[in-house]
Amino acid sequence: MEKEHTETRSTAEESYPIRLLQLSDKDKGFVDLLKQLTLCDSISDVDLAARFEDISAHGDDHIICVIEENHSQKIIAFGILFIEKKIIRNCGKVGRIEDIVVDFSIRGKHLEQKIIRFLSEHAKSVGCYKIIPDDDDEMNKEFYEKCGFKEKGVVMELYFD
Amino acid sequence: MEKEHTETRSTAEESYPIRLLQLSDKDKGFVDLLKQLTLCDSISDVDLAARFEDISAHGDDHIICVIEENHSQKIIAFGILFIEKKIIRNCGKVGRIEDIVVDFSIRGKHLEQKIIRFLSEHAKSVGCYKIIPDDDDEMNKEFYEKCGFKEKGVVMELYFD
Repeated sequence: MEKEHTETRSTAEESYPIRLLQLSDKDKGFVDLLKQLTLCDSISDVDLAARFEDISAHGDDHIICVIEENHSQKIIAFGILFIEKKIIRNCGKVGRIEDIVVDFSIRGKHLEQKIIRFLSEHAKSVGCYKIIPDDDDEMNKEFYEKCGFKEKGVVMELYFD
Repeated sequence: MEKEHTETRSTAEESYPIRLLQLSDKDKGFVDLLKQLTLCDSISDVDLAARFEDISAHGDDHIICVIEENHSQKIIAFGILFIEKKIIRNCGKVGRIEDIVVDFSIRGKHLEQKIIRFLSEHAKSVGCYKIIPDDDDEMNKEFYEKCGFKEKGVVMELYFD
């Protein structure tokens, strides 16, 4: 049983490896993937390169991870972690997990959870005292609860015109 | 009436001017003020200077504002805005208001709201498409609602050991 389980997991790893985003992933459809999450319809190559460079400059404090489907070579999952540097909590750090999206055609592979685990482990490794997942991420609420997350409160927002 | 209102506001401005934090404000008690919000009991001067430098390096993308009480020269209010750079929303930006605290001895001056307005205006001026206030900031929920904020959802968190 153990051997079979290991082999199944290994096959899944090979089919859906997780790694950091590269700018060249635009050709593998990650911007199209983001359209499944929200408005993201007109990013020029110049704007995207500038934003990618800006985020990359933060190193371990702002990472974007993706899952590429091996057989199609398409980006089919995406998630962001950025580190908020506090003065409270004795200059502590908080990890914020944002903008998780998995291609709607991929079901039952628990790829959201793979993204969340990857980002959470990174947050812990860089010394965050806590992590706060995306407040839009209702889909994974049960998973978060199983991992020990607690409800903190209600979040509000204001869109500018 | 208009003249009287203007004079009252002007006096309040002079007594409680709002400005950006300076590192030397440690001598004006801002770390003690943060203890009223949460754990913040052992920041060394070296750690504080390093964190201040780190935050300052972000320029307009991570600001801390304070209110200094003129007669006591003490920092009696504090709030943070940091800008999250997205890829969604066509490389949009979100402003997050965090860690607002007003000295518990100061009542009825609406200083929290002064902080929130200052940070919100800054977020708008640097092109954020929305702002999200601190989810701990229950005290100002009514004020946020009056300003047009809407409830977005429930936020969760996980503290690492």
